[in-house]
Amino acid sequence: MEFTVGQIAEVLRGAVEGDASQRIDRLAKIEEAQTGALSFLSNLKYEPHLYTTGASAVIVSRTLELKHPVTTALIRVDDPYTSFTTLLEFYQQATRTGKRGVEEPAYIASSSTIGGNHYRGAFSYIGENCQIGNDVVIFPHVFIGDRCKIGDGTILYAGAKIYAETVIGNRCTVHAGAVIGSDGFGFAPQPDGSYRTIPQIGNVVLEDNVSIGANATIDCATMGSTIIREGSKIDNLVQIAHNVEIGQHTVVAAQTGISGSTKIGDNCVLAGQTGIAGHLTLANRTTVTAQSGVGKSIKEEGILLQGSPAFNLRDSLRANAVFRHLPDLERRLTLLERGTNPPEKS
Amino acid sequence: MEFTVGQIAEVLRGAVEGDASQRIDRLAKIEEAQTGALSFLSNLKYEPHLYTTGASAVIVSRTLELKHPVTTALIRVDDPYTSFTTLLEFYQQATRTGKRGVEEPAYIASSSTIGGNHYRGAFSYIGENCQIGNDVVIFPHVFIGDRCKIGDGTILYAGAKIYAETVIGNRCTVHAGAVIGSDGFGFAPQPDGSYRTIPQIGNVVLEDNVSIGANATIDCATMGSTIIREGSKIDNLVQIAHNVEIGQHTVVAAQTGISGSTKIGDNCVLAGQTGIAGHLTLANRTTVTAQSGVGKSIKEEGILLQGSPAFNLRDSLRANAVFRHLPDLERRLTLLERGTNPPEKS
Amino acid sequence: MEFTVGQIAEVLRGAVEGDASQRIDRLAKIEEAQTGALSFLSNLKYEPHLYTTGASAVIVSRTLELKHPVTTALIRVDDPYTSFTTLLEFYQQATRTGKRGVEEPAYIASSSTIGGNHYRGAFSYIGENCQIGNDVVIFPHVFIGDRCKIGDGTILYAGAKIYAETVIGNRCTVHAGAVIGSDGFGFAPQPDGSYRTIPQIGNVVLEDNVSIGANATIDCATMGSTIIREGSKIDNLVQIAHNVEIGQHTVVAAQTGISGSTKIGDNCVLAGQTGIAGHLTLANRTTVTAQSGVGKSIKEEGILLQGSPAFNLRDSLRANAVFRHLPDLERRLTLLERGTNPPEKS
Repeated sequence: MEFTVGQIAEVLRGAVEGDASQRIDRLAKIEEAQTGALSFLSNLKYEPHLYTTGASAVIVSRTLELKHPVTTALIRVDDPYTSFTTLLEFYQQATRTGKRGVEEPAYIASSSTIGGNHYRGAFSYIGENCQIGNDVVIFPHVFIGDRCKIGDGTILYAGAKIYAETVIGNRCTVHAGAVIGSDGFGFAPQPDGSYRTIPQIGNVVLEDNVSIGANATIDCATMGSTIIREGSKIDNLVQIAHNVEIGQHTVVAAQTGISGSTKIGDNCVLAGQTGIAGHLTLANRTTVTAQSGVGKSIKEEGILLQGSPAFNLRDSLRANAVFRHLPDLERRLTLLERGTNPPEKS
Repeated sequence: MEFTVGQIAEVLRGAVEGDASQRIDRLAKIEEAQTGALSFLSNLKYEPHLYTTGASAVIVSRTLELKHPVTTALIRVDDPYTSFTTLLEFYQQATRTGKRGVEEPAYIASSSTIGGNHYRGAFSYIGENCQIGNDVVIFPHVFIGDRCKIGDGTILYAGAKIYAETVIGNRCTVHAGAVIGSDGFGFAPQPDGSYRTIPQIGNVVLEDNVSIGANATIDCATMGSTIIREGSKIDNLVQIAHNVEIGQHTVVAAQTGISGSTKIGDNCVLAGQTGIAGHLTLANRTTVTAQSGVGKSIKEEGILLQGSPAFNLRDSLRANAVFRHLPDLERRLTLLERGTNPPEKS
Repeated sequence: MEFTVGQIAEVLRGAVEGDASQRIDRLAKIEEAQTGALSFLSNLKYEPHLYTTGASAVIVSRTLELKHPVTTALIRVDDPYTSFTTLLEFYQQATRTGKRGVEEPAYIASSSTIGGNHYRGAFSYIGENCQIGNDVVIFPHVFIGDRCKIGDGTILYAGAKIYAETVIGNRCTVHAGAVIGSDGFGFAPQPDGSYRTIPQIGNVVLEDNVSIGANATIDCATMGSTIIREGSKIDNLVQIAHNVEIGQHTVVAAQTGISGSTKIGDNCVLAGQTGIAGHLTLANRTTVTAQSGVGKSIKEEGILLQGSPAFNLRDSLRANAVFRHLPDLERRLTLLERGTNPPEKS
């Protein structure tokens, strides 16, 4: 894709200073931009880059007063950051998520319905009795099992695997290779030491505006539903076990695992590689730092947790600070036992 | 699917009390069940729900004496839990794993054989010289490389990827996106700092009744076989490296990683996010708690381990209890060095 | 595949002692080898196995003097280890990575180009405007998005998913189910507690000789590129976030996660289940032990780190040694406070 500075300014209802005929073929950070790139200046901390940037054009505020001459063209708008985000969204739409039409061979069972204005990539698969909304984007190799429901504007990237009976809301995103609705890990120990598989007949429900990362796995409920509520964002390689419920607008970073039947509140943040034990409840606005392991329910809202096992962040930081000089602590104790204070501390 | 209470009672050889013509279209827990749902009462702790449940029918024991009137129909059987599990298995079979036939396009090399009564979903792939048993269920986008052997009754969910020469036993389950037989991570450091790839020519063997979770990865052996023995259950996103051997009826929970050439015994339990170093041996019935990291072989059977690095559970719990108040410990030590006992403890 | 001992000796320019007509159908370790297997003896620690091995033939040094009679045939070469590795590579090439030709149905957009001598498996997908080199091996179910560039001799295993605009160098290997180029995890918190998705318009660049493990995930940059440089090796289920840069010849073991915008140096080793926080820089030759969590930049080269949070290995080992007997430390402290030295230490 290639546009002129003038064409972009028109879209943004901005005013051009400099050569409006220059060609723009990409977006870049102001400190990295080269000829052909469009950048923006919002935080004035970066203003010095404006006078040295290699960008062909920079989006700036209408009110910015130049301190030095510039070699780049300027596009003056009311709010440079919002204008630039608009361009980013436009770019992503144009290049990746705006696909439409059907590439053959694509499989859809005749008992299933799909709304208008959609994309179904080659080798995508839709099973029996599915109900799929409008403006849906289904990349190649996506698998959608029987009796699924998928809302409007949802995007399923390449090779996403949706087991039977999954319900996905509107404007959700499921990244490549994510698995939604696999069997919960339920096995009943038998007297002879072997395990009997407990059938898993529940499903997964994703509400609207949920995002699921690449190769993440979300197990179906044993009975009932594993639920991820409105607007929550799940990162790559996250594991969510059977019957888990995650509240609204909660963020779960990469490689975190949540064990069976645990309920996570609204507006929580679970950092990367966190583990949450089963059958717990975490109150709204709980934050868990990276690599922590939570083994107890949290009833009070807004708590910060750290460590494995996790406790409150401030105490954990202080305990870790002492941990580092444990050998010194032991030496001091030994000296006291011998009746001698440490010489450097006496 | 929809059945009447009477039809279900007939299958279970149970006796109906109440309206046998009511329609059942799902199974649910007694405390959550609504009209149209069938539930069960086994643990009498839940008996109070029997008198308030919204279920259309509940499976109960022939010997249960009602303490109050019920609005739900009853199906009386000898053992409600077993009867309900039978229905769960029937339901799962009917809706998910009971598929049969071939959906086109599906690819199978002419040099490969597959037994009767199977399902091959659209876009499934079977390479050269494979031997595949009877009653096998192969979902869409499954990849089976050359010279694989797969036993009777095995289920491969959507997008499972089986590298060449893998051997899978009878009645195994491989969930969506799992990768079996990828190259072991073997690279020989060279004098110039680069790495030379060591070819990995071994394979993976899964014995009977093994279950592999969604997006789990199991590497082939460098030479010989990576082996998972009879009845072991591997959860989602688990990593099993080259030449690992896992004994019978061992359970490995989500996101655990087992490094190269390690041998895990029979009837072990590795909880979630555990790590086991390479070239170790863990005795039968070893249990490792969540997020622990095992760096030494365990020779005695039945040991419980915790921590990273892991040691025995009881000592680990006690050490963690002290860890939490390390700052207090240091303060007490400082007071002693100053010749002062802590006032609140003196 | 089956060869005679004589045929193999000819390829290796070796001299046969014993029956050159014996048939070889596999490679095995000398201590495990049975009839039909070819093995090798390089480390003389294993020489006793030479006199008892079941192998049909063993590759040995031209200079080896036999201490006992052997029943196996010998192939004498200059360097047995190098000769055996050559056979391993030949075997892997013949059985797995040497495929050529196109299996139908395979999808390639007419705007894309691909060089000669390639393999495209059934159900593989190549989008618009891709440029793909010579001798490329693309297994079934591989997805290659629009405008990707892929170098000569690269192998993409089954179901690898390459998002649009990814650049992959020569002789790279991407294992099954790996996802390259998924969206970075970028969400801007809004005043109402919800999140706005930040469009991710960058890409991923893999330089030459890079290997990516099964089901690993590598996110695209927000703007610019996530980069993995020449010769680095990434294991299964690793997560690499947006805008990360990994230097040359760095090894990242399974289930490790690297957060956004972090730069890892050359010749680093990150062991399994490691976590690296965002916006850090790790100097060349940094080594991080398994399950560690790095929260600070490392400026000095060649440092070894352990723990979560990580600090230098030697201090971490010493602190962990004291951690194990913390309850004892506390008891000693309490005795001192009571004015009593521990009896067994006094």
